[in-house]
Amino acid sequence: MKKSIGILGGMGPLATADLFRKIVLLTDAERDNDHIRIYIDDNASIPDRTAAILSGGADPLPAMTDSLRKLEACGADCIIMPCNTAHYFLPRLQALTEVPFLSMLEAAARACRARFPGRTAAVLATKGTLAAGLYQRALEAESVPFLIPAPAEQDALMRVIYEGVKAGRPPETYRADMISVLERLAAQGAGCFILGCTELPLAAQALALDVPLVDPTAELAKAAIRFCGYRVNE
Amino acid sequence: MKKSIGILGGMGPLATADLFRKIVLLTDAERDNDHIRIYIDDNASIPDRTAAILSGGADPLPAMTDSLRKLEACGADCIIMPCNTAHYFLPRLQALTEVPFLSMLEAAARACRARFPGRTAAVLATKGTLAAGLYQRALEAESVPFLIPAPAEQDALMRVIYEGVKAGRPPETYRADMISVLERLAAQGAGCFILGCTELPLAAQALALDVPLVDPTAELAKAAIRFCGYRVNE
Repeated sequence: MKKSIGILGGMGPLATADLFRKIVLLTDAERDNDHIRIYIDDNASIPDRTAAILSGGADPLPAMTDSLRKLEACGADCIIMPCNTAHYFLPRLQALTEVPFLSMLEAAARACRARFPGRTAAVLATKGTLAAGLYQRALEAESVPFLIPAPAEQDALMRVIYEGVKAGRPPETYRADMISVLERLAAQGAGCFILGCTELPLAAQALALDVPLVDPTAELAKAAIRFCGYRVNE
Repeated sequence: MKKSIGILGGMGPLATADLFRKIVLLTDAERDNDHIRIYIDDNASIPDRTAAILSGGADPLPAMTDSLRKLEACGADCIIMPCNTAHYFLPRLQALTEVPFLSMLEAAARACRARFPGRTAAVLATKGTLAAGLYQRALEAESVPFLIPAPAEQDALMRVIYEGVKAGRPPETYRADMISVLERLAAQGAGCFILGCTELPLAAQALALDVPLVDPTAELAKAAIRFCGYRVNE
């Protein structure tokens, strides 16, 4: 019996649509009926995760729990969420459910080791994700050497994410910020870049970036496809 | 109190992802929290609608009803489905629920009248949609003159939909079929083209078609956004 996926989404909505599309495209299927059943709660009312971690913003856990319960009621066999920063709350969510909750951070860290062995990974992420040490722990667990952006680069990434992609602005408005971050980290020895905020794969695609990238959204999609007993179309 | 959307999806999965993405992009929003809550059941196990209508294939109504019940249980305030052919079953689904079920055919027919007044609309759709007269009735209700593809063009469209988009093949494999259909219908007086199967907006985008098009997926997205009390970003 093949399994289904539940997506705890809305963080953000476009990133949720991106994860959904990647699961469909990465599933080895010839017809509609070959695909995985996917339940999505695109819950745009979940409070901002970075604000909750760094500056005492509203706690997103109650709204995330509401979505989790809806996905359980639908019958999802595993849960995933397309927000790296939200993984700060992952241990608490996992404690609330019997349904396996797959980690995007773990999927991305494993992909770094498998695809770019020995290279130093630069972690591009929100200030909330970086301050909480989410990727640092996941990469240490896989013995992947890494680099964290300095404060000025973190500011530039926050502009790309919030004032660029989440605000629906065109890529030319955030190209300079994104390129300056990549150049600075490459000069420090980065050999690959983790797009560690789900808005960043959207930015990378819009900007047609041509550097060694790890897309945690795509890696999470592959991990979920395999968990459900389907084959990845590579 | 703003409302939420339930998407009865999986028909097909890529078309469902396309509808979801279009709702997000067409919503006038600056931040995640400005977006609509969307519940999706991407139910890939729903039997093929054209096969059910034309050749006694398995009845899709039980699987569609299962999805409908899940979306109701989530609390969706309206239901939409990204499959034109599935609208053959719309009156039966509407009879099963108190939740408003918006019609993609009606949204598309209204867009033809508003955007291309007086022009003859060519209906590009599956054989199931055409044989059931779904668009014919919707266009008559809006007094839009229309043209239906001849059998050879219907065969070509079925190849584009099933052997092209649903099978995940590249656009060059179905370009000739698509262009021949458009040229034939234009020669017969078509002044605009309804992409009346949810795989066809995907084909049109991949082929970068430059003709007057009505995209029922986008029109349904706009109708649902307005129903929920949000503004369309045009």
